[in-house]
Amino acid sequence: MKYKVYGDIQSGNCYKVKLLLLFLGIEHEWQAVDILAGETQTEAFLAMNPNGKIPVLVLENGDSLSESNAILNFLAEGTSWLPKERLARARVLEWQFFEQYSHEPYIATARFINKYLGLPDDRLEEYQAKQQGGHQALKVMEQQLARSPFVAGEQPSIADISLYAYTHVAHEGGFYLAGYPAIGRWLEAVEALPGHATMASLMTEAACQ
Amino acid sequence: MKYKVYGDIQSGNCYKVKLLLLFLGIEHEWQAVDILAGETQTEAFLAMNPNGKIPVLVLENGDSLSESNAILNFLAEGTSWLPKERLARARVLEWQFFEQYSHEPYIATARFINKYLGLPDDRLEEYQAKQQGGHQALKVMEQQLARSPFVAGEQPSIADISLYAYTHVAHEGGFYLAGYPAIGRWLEAVEALPGHATMASLMTEAACQ
Repeated sequence: MKYKVYGDIQSGNCYKVKLLLLFLGIEHEWQAVDILAGETQTEAFLAMNPNGKIPVLVLENGDSLSESNAILNFLAEGTSWLPKERLARARVLEWQFFEQYSHEPYIATARFINKYLGLPDDRLEEYQAKQQGGHQALKVMEQQLARSPFVAGEQPSIADISLYAYTHVAHEGGFYLAGYPAIGRWLEAVEALPGHATMASLMTEAACQ
Repeated sequence: MKYKVYGDIQSGNCYKVKLLLLFLGIEHEWQAVDILAGETQTEAFLAMNPNGKIPVLVLENGDSLSESNAILNFLAEGTSWLPKERLARARVLEWQFFEQYSHEPYIATARFINKYLGLPDDRLEEYQAKQQGGHQALKVMEQQLARSPFVAGEQPSIADISLYAYTHVAHEGGFYLAGYPAIGRWLEAVEALPGHATMASLMTEAACQ
Protein backbone atom coordinates (compact mmCIF):
# COMPACT_ATOMS: atom_id res chain seq x y z
CA MET A 1 0.00 0.00 0.00
CA LYS A 2 1.46 3.34 -1.06
CA TYR A 3 0.00 5.49 1.74
CA LYS A 4 -0.99 5.00 5.35
CA VAL A 5 -3.04 7.67 7.12
CA TYR A 6 -3.28 8.04 10.90
CA GLY A 7 -6.54 9.82 11.63
CA ASP A 8 -10.00 10.04 13.15
CA ILE A 9 -12.73 10.34 10.54
CA GLN A 10 -14.82 12.51 12.92
CA SER A 11 -12.07 15.15 12.79
CA GLY A 12 -12.55 17.50 9.84
CA ASN A 13 -8.78 17.86 9.47
CA CYS A 14 -8.48 14.07 8.99
CA TYR A 15 -11.62 13.81 6.87
CA LYS A 16 -10.06 16.31 4.42
CA VAL A 17 -7.32 13.80 3.61
CA LYS A 18 -9.81 10.91 3.28
CA LEU A 19 -12.01 12.97 0.96
CA LEU A 20 -9.15 13.86 -1.41
CA LEU A 21 -8.00 10.22 -1.47
CA LEU A 22 -11.58 9.24 -2.41
CA PHE A 23 -11.82 11.94 -5.10
CA LEU A 24 -8.48 10.80 -6.54
CA GLY A 25 -9.32 7.10 -6.19
CA ILE A 26 -6.06 6.42 -4.33
CA GLU A 27 -5.96 3.21 -2.29
CA HIS A 28 -4.67 3.66 1.24
CA GLU A 29 -4.59 2.16 4.70
CA TRP A 30 -6.49 4.12 7.36
CA GLN A 31 -5.27 3.72 10.93
CA ALA A 32 -7.84 4.99 13.44
CA VAL A 33 -6.37 7.12 16.24
CA ASP A 34 -8.26 8.07 19.42
CA ILE A 35 -7.23 11.59 20.52
CA LEU A 36 -9.16 11.52 23.79
CA ALA A 37 -7.40 8.25 24.78
CA GLY A 38 -4.02 10.00 24.37
CA GLU A 39 -2.99 8.05 21.27
CA THR A 40 -1.40 11.14 19.68
CA GLN A 41 0.89 11.61 22.71
CA THR A 42 2.66 8.24 22.74
CA GLU A 43 6.39 8.03 22.02
CA ALA A 44 5.76 6.19 18.75
CA PHE A 45 3.25 8.76 17.58
CA LEU A 46 5.43 11.74 18.55
CA ALA A 47 8.27 10.21 16.50
CA MET A 48 6.01 10.63 13.44
CA ASN A 49 4.68 14.06 14.42
CA PRO A 50 6.42 15.87 17.31
CA ASN A 51 3.46 18.25 17.44
CA GLY A 52 1.19 15.35 18.53
CA LYS A 53 -1.65 15.98 16.10
CA ILE A 54 -3.55 14.02 13.47
CA PRO A 55 -3.72 13.52 10.54
CA VAL A 56 -0.32 12.10 9.62
CA LEU A 57 0.44 10.67 6.17
CA VAL A 58 3.11 7.97 6.05
CA LEU A 59 4.75 7.30 2.68
CA GLU A 60 5.99 3.95 1.41
CA ASN A 61 9.60 4.83 2.36
CA GLY A 62 8.58 5.63 5.94
CA ASP A 63 8.67 9.43 5.64
CA SER A 64 5.80 11.09 7.46
CA LEU A 65 4.02 14.36 6.72
CA SER A 66 1.65 16.21 9.05
CA GLU A 67 -0.67 19.24 8.79
CA SER A 68 -3.83 18.42 6.86
CA ASN A 69 -3.43 21.20 4.29
CA ALA A 70 0.22 20.32 3.61
CA ILE A 71 -0.88 16.71 3.03
CA LEU A 72 -3.57 17.87 0.59
CA ASN A 73 -0.99 19.90 -1.35
CA PHE A 74 1.33 16.89 -1.49
CA LEU A 75 -1.35 14.46 -2.69
CA ALA A 76 -2.92 16.90 -5.18
CA GLU A 77 0.32 17.84 -6.97
CA GLY A 78 -0.06 17.14 -10.68
CA THR A 79 -3.85 16.70 -10.49
CA SER A 80 -6.72 19.07 -11.35
CA TRP A 81 -7.19 19.70 -7.61
CA LEU A 82 -4.09 21.93 -7.50
CA PRO A 83 -3.54 24.40 -10.34
CA LYS A 84 -0.08 24.84 -11.85
CA GLU A 85 -0.15 28.60 -12.50
CA ARG A 86 1.63 30.66 -9.83
CA LEU A 87 -1.17 33.04 -8.76
CA ALA A 88 -3.82 30.30 -8.94
CA ARG A 89 -1.69 28.10 -6.64
CA ALA A 90 -1.22 30.99 -4.21
CA ARG A 91 -4.99 31.61 -4.28
CA VAL A 92 -5.57 27.99 -3.14
CA LEU A 93 -3.10 28.53 -0.29
CA GLU A 94 -4.73 31.87 0.61
CA TRP A 95 -8.01 30.03 1.30
CA GLN A 96 -6.27 27.15 3.08
CA PHE A 97 -4.48 29.54 5.46
CA PHE A 98 -7.79 31.40 5.91
CA GLU A 99 -9.32 28.05 6.87
CA GLN A 100 -6.68 27.20 9.46
CA TYR A 101 -6.54 30.66 11.04
CA SER A 102 -9.99 32.23 10.65
CA HIS A 103 -12.41 29.29 10.22
CA GLU A 104 -11.15 26.13 11.97
CA PRO A 105 -10.30 27.72 15.38
CA TYR A 106 -13.94 28.87 15.68
CA ILE A 107 -16.13 26.33 13.86
CA ALA A 108 -14.07 23.20 14.53
CA THR A 109 -13.35 24.15 18.14
CA ALA A 110 -17.03 24.90 18.88
CA ARG A 111 -17.90 21.55 17.30
CA PHE A 112 -15.22 19.73 19.33
CA ILE A 113 -16.53 21.23 22.59
CA ASN A 114 -20.08 20.24 21.69
CA LYS A 115 -19.66 16.90 19.89
CA TYR A 116 -16.52 15.37 21.43
CA LEU A 117 -16.82 16.81 24.94
CA GLY A 118 -20.62 17.04 25.24
CA LEU A 119 -20.69 20.81 25.92
CA PRO A 120 -19.58 20.70 29.55
CA ASP A 121 -20.49 23.69 31.77
CA ASP A 122 -16.88 24.82 32.14
CA ARG A 123 -16.48 25.17 28.35
CA LEU A 124 -19.86 26.86 27.69
CA GLU A 125 -18.48 30.40 27.73
CA GLU A 126 -15.67 29.43 25.30
CA TYR A 127 -18.23 27.68 23.06
CA GLN A 128 -20.37 30.82 22.95
CA ALA A 129 -17.34 33.03 22.32
CA LYS A 130 -16.53 30.97 19.21
CA GLN A 131 -19.84 31.79 17.51
CA GLN A 132 -18.97 35.33 16.39
CA GLY A 133 -15.65 34.37 14.76
CA GLY A 134 -17.30 31.40 13.05
CA HIS A 135 -20.01 33.57 11.52
CA GLN A 136 -17.37 36.11 10.42
CA ALA A 137 -15.59 33.29 8.53
CA LEU A 138 -18.87 32.10 7.01
CA LYS A 139 -19.65 35.67 5.84
CA VAL A 140 -16.28 35.89 4.07
CA MET A 141 -16.95 32.49 2.39
CA GLU A 142 -20.51 33.53 1.43
CA GLN A 143 -19.21 36.68 -0.27
CA GLN A 144 -16.63 34.70 -2.25
CA LEU A 145 -19.03 31.89 -3.21
CA ALA A 146 -21.64 34.40 -4.39
CA ARG A 147 -19.25 35.39 -7.19
CA SER A 148 -17.31 32.20 -7.85
CA PRO A 149 -18.64 28.63 -8.14
CA PHE A 150 -15.78 27.19 -6.12
CA VAL A 151 -13.67 28.79 -3.40
CA ALA A 152 -10.58 29.50 -5.47
CA GLY A 153 -12.20 29.87 -8.90
CA GLU A 154 -14.19 28.10 -11.59
CA GLN A 155 -12.94 24.59 -10.80
CA PRO A 156 -12.90 22.58 -7.57
CA SER A 157 -9.54 22.61 -5.79
CA ILE A 158 -8.12 21.40 -2.50
CA ALA A 159 -9.18 24.78 -1.04
CA ASP A 160 -12.77 23.52 -1.37
CA ILE A 161 -11.89 20.31 0.46
CA SER A 162 -10.21 22.29 3.26
CA LEU A 163 -13.24 24.52 3.78
CA TYR A 164 -15.90 21.87 3.09
CA ALA A 165 -14.58 19.60 5.87
CA TYR A 166 -15.80 21.61 8.85
CA THR A 167 -18.45 23.66 6.99
CA HIS A 168 -20.55 20.60 6.13
CA VAL A 169 -20.72 19.69 9.84
CA ALA A 170 -20.85 23.29 11.14
CA HIS A 171 -24.32 22.67 12.67
CA GLU A 172 -22.59 20.32 15.14
CA GLY A 173 -20.82 23.44 16.44
CA GLY A 174 -24.06 25.44 16.58
CA PHE A 175 -23.65 27.16 13.19
CA TYR A 176 -26.78 27.03 11.04
CA LEU A 177 -26.29 27.79 7.37
CA ALA A 178 -29.82 28.89 6.35
CA GLY A 179 -28.62 32.49 6.05
CA TYR A 180 -25.80 31.54 3.66
CA PRO A 181 -27.39 30.58 0.31
CA ALA A 182 -24.15 30.62 -1.71
CA ILE A 183 -22.51 28.29 0.82
CA GLY A 184 -25.55 26.01 0.54
CA ARG A 185 -25.26 25.85 -3.26
CA TRP A 186 -21.50 25.20 -2.98
CA LEU A 187 -21.98 22.37 -0.43
CA GLU A 188 -24.31 20.71 -2.97
CA ALA A 189 -21.77 21.23 -5.77
CA VAL A 190 -18.99 19.58 -3.72
CA GLU A 191 -21.32 16.74 -2.76
CA ALA A 192 -22.13 16.11 -6.45
CA LEU A 193 -18.46 15.46 -7.33
CA PRO A 194 -17.64 11.81 -8.18
CA GLY A 195 -16.17 9.95 -5.20
CA HIS A 196 -17.67 12.23 -2.55
CA ALA A 197 -18.75 10.78 0.81
CA THR A 198 -19.98 12.73 3.84
CA MET A 199 -18.24 12.37 7.16
CA ALA A 200 -21.39 10.74 8.57
CA SER A 201 -21.43 8.02 5.87
CA LEU A 202 -17.74 7.26 6.46
CA MET A 203 -18.33 7.03 10.21
CA THR A 204 -21.14 4.53 9.65
CA GLU A 205 -18.91 2.53 7.30
CA ALA A 206 -16.06 2.52 9.85
CA ALA A 207 -18.43 1.43 12.64
CA CYS A 208 -19.69 -1.54 10.57
CA GLN A 209 -16.26 -2.94 9.70
CA MET B 1 6.49 49.43 -9.16
CA LYS B 2 5.65 45.75 -9.53
CA TYR B 3 4.33 45.15 -6.00
CA LYS B 4 2.56 47.17 -3.33
CA VAL B 5 2.27 45.77 0.19
CA TYR B 6 -0.27 46.96 2.75
CA GLY B 7 1.15 46.19 6.18
CA ASP B 8 2.44 47.16 9.60
CA ILE B 9 6.11 46.36 10.08
CA GLN B 10 5.51 45.68 13.81
CA SER B 11 3.24 42.76 12.82
CA GLY B 12 5.23 39.58 12.30
CA ASN B 13 2.84 38.47 9.58
CA CYS B 14 3.62 41.65 7.62
CA TYR B 15 7.31 41.61 8.45
CA LYS B 16 7.53 38.11 6.86
CA VAL B 17 6.65 39.62 3.48
CA LYS B 18 9.08 42.52 3.92
CA LEU B 19 11.88 40.13 4.87
CA LEU B 20 11.43 37.92 1.80
CA LEU B 21 11.30 41.01 -0.45
CA LEU B 22 14.60 42.13 1.12
CA PHE B 23 16.20 38.68 0.72
CA LEU B 24 15.10 38.58 -2.92
CA GLY B 25 16.06 42.21 -3.55
CA ILE B 26 12.62 43.00 -5.00
CA GLU B 27 11.67 46.69 -5.10
CA HIS B 28 8.21 47.41 -3.73
CA GLU B 29 5.99 50.11 -2.31
CA TRP B 30 5.09 49.69 1.38
CA GLN B 31 1.81 51.23 2.49
CA ALA B 32 1.62 51.49 6.30
CA VAL B 33 -1.74 50.40 7.76
CA ASP B 34 -2.84 51.09 11.35
CA ILE B 35 -4.92 48.16 12.64
CA LEU B 36 -5.87 49.83 15.92
CA ALA B 37 -7.21 52.88 14.01
CA GLY B 38 -9.57 50.54 12.07
CA GLU B 39 -7.78 50.93 8.75
CA THR B 40 -8.29 47.24 7.87
CA GLN B 41 -12.06 47.60 8.24
CA THR B 42 -12.73 50.39 5.72
CA GLU B 43 -14.78 49.67 2.59
CA ALA B 44 -11.73 50.16 0.37
CA PHE B 45 -9.61 47.78 2.44
CA LEU B 46 -12.31 45.09 2.63
CA ALA B 47 -12.57 45.20 -1.18
CA MET B 48 -8.92 44.02 -1.24
CA ASN B 49 -9.29 41.53 1.61
CA PRO B 50 -12.82 40.73 2.79
CA ASN B 51 -11.27 39.12 5.88
CA GLY B 52 -9.98 42.55 6.99
CA LYS B 53 -6.42 41.51 7.79
CA ILE B 54 -2.93 42.60 6.80
CA PRO B 55 -0.66 41.93 4.98
CA VAL B 56 -2.11 42.30 1.49
CA LEU B 57 0.03 42.12 -1.65
CA VAL B 58 -1.27 44.06 -4.66
CA LEU B 59 0.07 43.07 -8.07
CA GLU B 60 0.67 45.39 -11.01
CA ASN B 61 -2.61 44.35 -12.64
CA GLY B 62 -4.57 45.20 -9.47
CA ASP B 63 -5.07 41.62 -8.24
CA SER B 64 -4.66 41.31 -4.49
CA LEU B 65 -3.47 38.38 -2.41
CA SER B 66 -3.79 38.01 1.36
CA GLU B 67 -2.52 35.57 4.03
CA SER B 68 1.17 36.09 4.75
CA ASN B 69 2.21 32.52 4.02
CA ALA B 70 0.33 32.41 0.71
CA ILE B 71 2.10 35.66 -0.26
CA LEU B 72 5.49 34.10 0.63
CA ASN B 73 4.73 31.08 -1.57
CA PHE B 74 3.73 33.35 -4.45
CA LEU B 75 6.84 35.54 -4.21
CA ALA B 76 9.26 32.64 -3.65
CA GLU B 77 8.11 30.54 -6.62
CA GLY B 78 11.09 29.78 -8.85
CA THR B 79 13.68 30.90 -6.24
CA SER B 80 15.85 28.93 -3.82
CA TRP B 81 13.44 29.88 -1.00
CA LEU B 82 10.83 27.39 -2.26
CA PRO B 83 12.04 23.95 -3.38
CA LYS B 84 10.62 22.38 -6.54
CA GLU B 85 10.48 18.74 -5.42
CA ARG B 86 7.03 17.59 -4.28
CA LEU B 87 7.81 16.34 -0.75
CA ALA B 88 10.23 19.20 -0.06
CA ARG B 89 7.53 21.72 -1.03
CA ALA B 90 4.99 19.97 1.20
CA ARG B 91 7.53 20.03 4.05
CA VAL B 92 7.76 23.84 3.74
CA LEU B 93 3.96 24.04 3.91
CA GLU B 94 3.88 21.64 6.88
CA TRP B 95 5.96 24.15 8.88
CA GLN B 96 4.01 27.14 7.61
CA PHE B 97 0.70 25.59 8.69
CA PHE B 98 2.34 24.65 12.01
CA GLU B 99 3.30 28.32 12.36
CA GLN B 100 -0.20 29.64 11.73
CA TYR B 101 -2.00 27.09 13.91
CA SER B 102 0.40 26.11 16.71
CA HIS B 103 2.87 29.03 17.02
CA GLU B 104 1.31 32.35 15.94
CA PRO B 105 -1.94 32.09 17.99
CA TYR B 106 0.17 31.80 21.17
CA ILE B 107 3.38 33.75 20.65
CA ALA B 108 2.02 36.49 18.37
CA THR B 109 -1.16 36.91 20.40
CA ALA B 110 0.72 37.16 23.72
CA ARG B 111 3.03 39.73 22.09
CA PHE B 112 0.04 41.69 20.70
CA ILE B 113 -1.60 41.82 24.15
CA ASN B 114 1.67 42.98 25.72
CA LYS B 115 3.20 45.21 23.06
CA TYR B 116 0.21 46.69 21.19
CA LEU B 117 -2.31 46.80 24.05
CA GLY B 118 0.08 47.35 26.98
CA LEU B 119 -0.99 44.21 28.91
CA PRO B 120 -4.31 45.54 30.25
CA ASP B 121 -5.74 43.84 33.36
CA ASP B 122 -8.70 42.34 31.48
CA ARG B 123 -6.35 40.49 29.07
CA LEU B 124 -3.85 39.27 31.72
CA GLU B 125 -5.45 35.85 32.14
CA GLU B 126 -5.50 35.30 28.36
CA TYR B 127 -1.85 36.45 28.14
CA GLN B 128 -0.83 33.94 30.78
CA ALA B 129 -2.87 31.17 29.13
CA LYS B 130 -0.89 31.69 25.90
CA GLN B 131 2.45 30.86 27.55
CA GLN B 132 2.03 27.07 27.63
CA GLY B 133 1.04 26.74 23.95
CA GLY B 134 3.89 29.05 22.94
CA HIS B 135 6.47 26.95 24.78
CA GLN B 136 4.98 23.80 23.27
CA ALA B 137 5.57 25.29 19.79
CA LEU B 138 9.12 26.33 20.73
CA LYS B 139 9.85 22.78 21.95
CA VAL B 140 8.74 21.32 18.63
CA MET B 141 10.95 23.85 16.78
CA GLU B 142 13.91 23.15 19.10
CA GLN B 143 13.67 19.42 18.40
CA GLN B 144 13.63 20.01 14.64
CA LEU B 145 16.44 22.59 14.66
CA ALA B 146 18.64 20.31 16.77
CA ARG B 147 18.81 17.92 13.80
CA SER B 148 18.46 20.21 10.81
CA PRO B 149 20.20 23.57 10.18
CA PHE B 150 17.03 25.17 8.82
CA VAL B 151 13.40 24.41 9.58
CA ALA B 152 12.61 22.43 6.44
CA GLY B 153 16.05 21.03 5.68
CA GLU B 154 19.63 21.94 4.77
CA GLN B 155 18.82 25.20 3.03
CA PRO B 156 16.86 28.29 4.15
CA SER B 157 13.28 28.36 2.84
CA ILE B 158 10.20 30.50 3.35
CA ALA B 159 9.32 28.18 6.27
CA ASP B 160 12.25 29.80 8.12
CA ILE B 161 10.92 33.27 7.34
CA SER B 162 7.44 32.27 8.60
CA LEU B 163 8.80 30.99 11.91
CA TYR B 164 11.55 33.57 12.33
CA ALA B 165 9.08 36.48 12.17
CA TYR B 166 7.49 36.00 15.60
CA THR B 167 10.27 33.90 17.15
CA HIS B 168 12.86 36.69 16.92
CA VAL B 169 10.52 38.98 18.90
CA ALA B 170 9.09 36.24 21.15
CA HIS B 171 10.50 37.99 24.25
CA GLU B 172 7.99 40.78 23.62
CA GLY B 173 5.32 38.18 24.36
CA GLY B 174 7.12 36.97 27.49
CA PHE B 175 8.92 34.02 25.86
CA TYR B 176 12.61 33.85 26.71
CA LEU B 177 14.72 31.64 24.49
CA ALA B 178 17.68 30.86 26.77
CA GLY B 179 16.44 27.27 27.14
CA TYR B 180 16.34 26.71 23.38
CA PRO B 181 19.96 26.56 22.12
CA ALA B 182 19.15 25.18 18.66
CA ILE B 183 16.63 27.99 18.12
CA GLY B 184 19.31 30.48 19.21
CA ARG B 185 21.79 29.10 16.66
CA TRP B 186 19.12 29.15 13.94
CA LEU B 187 18.16 32.78 14.70
CA GLU B 188 21.82 33.70 14.17
CA ALA B 189 21.96 31.71 10.92
CA VAL B 190 18.87 33.51 9.56
CA GLU B 191 20.30 36.87 10.67
CA ALA B 192 23.54 36.15 8.78
CA LEU B 193 21.75 35.76 5.43
CA PRO B 194 22.40 38.61 2.94
CA GLY B 195 19.60 41.20 2.95
CA HIS B 196 18.39 40.42 6.48
CA ALA B 197 17.02 43.21 8.68
CA THR B 198 15.42 42.83 12.09
CA MET B 199 11.93 44.15 12.72
CA ALA B 200 13.39 46.71 15.14
CA SER B 201 15.79 48.13 12.52
CA LEU B 202 12.96 48.42 9.97
CA MET B 203 10.75 50.18 12.54
CA THR B 204 13.51 52.72 13.20
CA GLU B 205 13.96 53.24 9.47
CA ALA B 206 10.20 53.72 8.99
CA ALA B 207 10.05 56.18 11.91
CA CYS B 208 12.89 58.29 10.42
CA GLN B 209 11.36 58.67 6.95
